[in-house]
Amino acid sequence: MIIRYAARAGYASVMPRITDARRAARRIHILRAAIRCVTRSGFQGMTMGDVIAESGLSAGAVYGYFGSKNELLAAVADHNFAGLVGIVARAAGEGDPPAPADVLEAMIAGLLEVAVTEDGDLTIVAVQIWGQAVLGGDIQDLMSPRIHLVLDQLTGLARRWQQAGFVAPDADPESVARVFLALVPGFMLQRLVIGEQSAADFSAGLRALTAARAASQ
Amino acid sequence: MIIRYAARAGYASVMPRITDARRAARRIHILRAAIRCVTRSGFQGMTMGDVIAESGLSAGAVYGYFGSKNELLAAVADHNFAGLVGIVARAAGEGDPPAPADVLEAMIAGLLEVAVTEDGDLTIVAVQIWGQAVLGGDIQDLMSPRIHLVLDQLTGLARRWQQAGFVAPDADPESVARVFLALVPGFMLQRLVIGEQSAADFSAGLRALTAARAASQ
Repeated sequence: MIIRYAARAGYASVMPRITDARRAARRIHILRAAIRCVTRSGFQGMTMGDVIAESGLSAGAVYGYFGSKNELLAAVADHNFAGLVGIVARAAGEGDPPAPADVLEAMIAGLLEVAVTEDGDLTIVAVQIWGQAVLGGDIQDLMSPRIHLVLDQLTGLARRWQQAGFVAPDADPESVARVFLALVPGFMLQRLVIGEQSAADFSAGLRALTAARAASQ
Repeated sequence: MIIRYAARAGYASVMPRITDARRAARRIHILRAAIRCVTRSGFQGMTMGDVIAESGLSAGAVYGYFGSKNELLAAVADHNFAGLVGIVARAAGEGDPPAPADVLEAMIAGLLEVAVTEDGDLTIVAVQIWGQAVLGGDIQDLMSPRIHLVLDQLTGLARRWQQAGFVAPDADPESVARVFLALVPGFMLQRLVIGEQSAADFSAGLRALTAARAASQ
């Protein structure tokens, strides 16, 4: 009786893992199809029918994972933000923080590393997500806490910059975080609309703004 | 003969002005209807039929001014960029330039002054324009030279900052302009998605980043 129970428990704990892996792979397959559609047509220009056709799966299969275009966009936004949090964490390091321009350079380099996939440019998808978020509704509700999460991360970094003398000691660290985060979509837009710029070239602009007083005074 | 010619010249120079004024007023009437539609549905979610209905004019009247949604969006983008060039010019002033954070504060304040109209928020329209520009095509072709125009303006300002000691003397002024311009869409997005922030609070973040070394060294 105990053995049969153990066997059953083993069965129960192994089988769902295989199923989960299959489900996860299929979910990614659908998301990749959606990324191809969004980068081709824009979010509003894409239909669930386009994603279904692009995925090569049945409508039922796709709807089993994502009930709507918004759910697809939400999943990509989630993926993008998780990536951004990781990029910020790696760029910010621990202990004595790198200078702001060095963190910016590492963040932009990290972004450029993951932006272009074989399915399309994730920063194009990001701009489509912004387009929906500013209209309010689900996507704004999804974006807002995620932006706050990255802002909290950067606010912590701004405090470390204050301790290290990179940021004025009496400043509100959140306002530093806001300015710093603002550079990311600005960079993405310039890159997509007027052309590529390296992480080194872009961050040199911030370096020139933050280092001048040290040099001249 | 001379008198009749003068009268004719007078006629010719007055009448077209009336016609032009009427045409200009009607053009603005249609653009305002388009702004209401875009801020409600997004650019891709809006049809020419929506704009025609919103304008209260006939289809023929509207198509007499704008042949397509792209032409409408291009006209709004033109208006926005003309506004931005004016805002940058006023914020940058002449002669000894204000400090970067002061220019940013004046730019953001200028932006906030014109952003919200009775038809909708022009920054929402701007994000919709970005969404189209990153997909390539007409809107990208329209945006690219306009972004370069503002970048040239800011590059000139960056040179003045170099002379005044606000920017490292060996820096590429265009990279400073790029970083500075990047703050604008970043600010707009944060404002639309996570909520209003004053020009003073946002620019305080840049002030804290640019002033710290002067204070600490």
